[in-house]
Amino acid sequence: MISSEYTRDLLISGSKSKIILLVIDGLGGLPDSTTGKSELDTASLPNLDRLVRGSSCGMLSPLGPGFTPGSGPAHLALFGYDPWRWKIGRGALSALGTGMDFRVGDIAARLNFCTVDKSGLVTDRRAGRISTDESQALCEILSEVKIPDVEFSLKAEMDYRVGVVFRGEELSENVTESDPQKTGVAPIKVSASEPGGEKMMWAVNSFLKQTKKLLSGQPRANMVLIRGFATFPTLPSFSHIYGLNALAIATYPMYRGVAKAAGMSTVVSDNNLSSACLLLKQYWDEFDFFFIHNKGTDSAGEDGDFDKKVRQLEEIDNQIPQLIEQEPSVLVVTGDHSTPSIMRSHSWHSVPVALASSFAQPHVGASFSENGCRDGSIGTISSSSLMALVLAHSGRLGKYGA
Amino acid sequence: MISSEYTRDLLISGSKSKIILLVIDGLGGLPDSTTGKSELDTASLPNLDRLVRGSSCGMLSPLGPGFTPGSGPAHLALFGYDPWRWKIGRGALSALGTGMDFRVGDIAARLNFCTVDKSGLVTDRRAGRISTDESQALCEILSEVKIPDVEFSLKAEMDYRVGVVFRGEELSENVTESDPQKTGVAPIKVSASEPGGEKMMWAVNSFLKQTKKLLSGQPRANMVLIRGFATFPTLPSFSHIYGLNALAIATYPMYRGVAKAAGMSTVVSDNNLSSACLLLKQYWDEFDFFFIHNKGTDSAGEDGDFDKKVRQLEEIDNQIPQLIEQEPSVLVVTGDHSTPSIMRSHSWHSVPVALASSFAQPHVGASFSENGCRDGSIGTISSSSLMALVLAHSGRLGKYGA
Repeated sequence: MISSEYTRDLLISGSKSKIILLVIDGLGGLPDSTTGKSELDTASLPNLDRLVRGSSCGMLSPLGPGFTPGSGPAHLALFGYDPWRWKIGRGALSALGTGMDFRVGDIAARLNFCTVDKSGLVTDRRAGRISTDESQALCEILSEVKIPDVEFSLKAEMDYRVGVVFRGEELSENVTESDPQKTGVAPIKVSASEPGGEKMMWAVNSFLKQTKKLLSGQPRANMVLIRGFATFPTLPSFSHIYGLNALAIATYPMYRGVAKAAGMSTVVSDNNLSSACLLLKQYWDEFDFFFIHNKGTDSAGEDGDFDKKVRQLEEIDNQIPQLIEQEPSVLVVTGDHSTPSIMRSHSWHSVPVALASSFAQPHVGASFSENGCRDGSIGTISSSSLMALVLAHSGRLGKYGA
Repeated sequence: MISSEYTRDLLISGSKSKIILLVIDGLGGLPDSTTGKSELDTASLPNLDRLVRGSSCGMLSPLGPGFTPGSGPAHLALFGYDPWRWKIGRGALSALGTGMDFRVGDIAARLNFCTVDKSGLVTDRRAGRISTDESQALCEILSEVKIPDVEFSLKAEMDYRVGVVFRGEELSENVTESDPQKTGVAPIKVSASEPGGEKMMWAVNSFLKQTKKLLSGQPRANMVLIRGFATFPTLPSFSHIYGLNALAIATYPMYRGVAKAAGMSTVVSDNNLSSACLLLKQYWDEFDFFFIHNKGTDSAGEDGDFDKKVRQLEEIDNQIPQLIEQEPSVLVVTGDHSTPSIMRSHSWHSVPVALASSFAQPHVGASFSENGCRDGSIGTISSSSLMALVLAHSGRLGKYGA
């Protein structure tokens, strides 16, 4: 059951109810081998535990058993789109997230500044994680590149990451990536992966050749890697399928990108939930759906830093009263996917969800953790079913059939 | 997994096992804000609680998370039909339920007698809830209406509700409804909603114009509202897909209508379970599947009368021994959907189910309530998966594959 496919015809118009969806990136975890407790079990979360006592709880499975999502599909699922059907290339997320001029017909891609040695072998895929400002300065240098019949634009995204948009006749996303995904080897020459990709292949290789020359004197960022070629995404919008005027509050461009692809407005928060809460209050009257993205938990999980992830969760817990204070009709706290610290990566494990509303069905023994949410009334459902539940609890979804 | 799509090829022939499906309409509820207990938690249900200790328990989701069903889709799902695929218009349920002469090619619709003021604005959409007998008398008056080339028949359904069947060449269900769904406005003129609806539009508007004249002297029911235009439903029958000779025992015509659409025989009970139990005994030898519909719980929920719903549940509990006494192979007690008293309406929340049989898997801590069934061996499944479970437990469903 995909929320976005059935909701539109059942929408109740004229509702003024407000909805908050707090996405704690990489929320789910796994037990530490000594304590037997997950990050959520370990953290002291008095506000979240209080919230779940008035919530319907359960688990969200982003892609079904065993499948680990990237951030794009994980968020698309939370927004009610079938993540197996709707695909947004990484390049499109970068272009949308950074607010570049990106249109139907363009091809977007994601660049990493990287370091190569004298033989052209990659020694650092992230160029020492140079800053966003340094990346933007290097983008200015690269604006000198000329490709006949093809326009392009570049914009620094975050640290060493850059979005690029190509515009011209006969461009295509059907080209291979230059990023070898490891060090000690040269970037891979781009080739057409399907017929029709020839002009794009030629344009990208021309871009890369000139880039190498222009950056050759740089101490760290002396080359780029390119991947994630993507067309402009054409998802049905949140306002169309849910009747919601939605605002995304996120620090990282990528999450604003996926929100924009779903037709949300976006605003940039500092990298903490208290900053997001201030923006929530500022924009409260203008929107009826607020997607708040919190990144720190995922980063800590990917670093394998169990204790840091615990601290991040506790900091989030401190801000929960700020969300409750707004008195939304529905407050959902969940994650896009699990990022267990012991795995140092995204995983396939389902993610706890708490949905607070006047029509919630709380259960005895609930707490905000994997095992504390699993027995709740929501059960384990697809992440892409969440939006219908949210609409129902906010009084925005009417009855189906006589 | 939809029961009706997979069962037919796996049926074991020659079984004499008997099945009872008791549908407690609007069974599921939500906690009262002061006690924290739902209607089921509050009611004293010794017989049902004893039943679940020998039952597989779980929760049924009529349409998936967040989607609230009308009675039609909710029952179709319980009968194993995909409720998103098989649609039965309200008019067809009225025509079938009242036993009207309704055939392929006819168009059925549902009439409400209503009250309009001197300017023709609706002041009561239900004409003071006039009785079925009064409605039937008014139907006789309306039989004087003449529409060239079109026959029609009318039959009182329940109170102010009436079924109408139109018969003639080139009739269509593709016309808009005249019911404005609110008071203070005039009935809406019927128009064609798709090409091909023109003759039907003309016939219905002619019917309504003459109706207004014929009823103008009536004190309360001086006009009708029309909606739910529908063709004759063509579902595969219960006997075809399940090999079951099924009887529906219901007080309200609508539920006999949906049962007839599934090919069941029907019989009318008084509006209480003890009357239904008498009919069950009377017809026990003639059928192998008995669908018993109990309406009172839903009505109490829709009235927002928590205590009345509790009493209705307790009255049902009193009759459970009557059902057990028949020694069916399978006794299922469940609901078509939830109707929480605090919401005064149908809702999307899953519904408890108890399936008693020799092959049940009971669980510790079970009770007949939302939280008392949720942890059971059935888990949370689609309502449309119930019939396969029922057939399996009754020894009627064979092995798939070698």
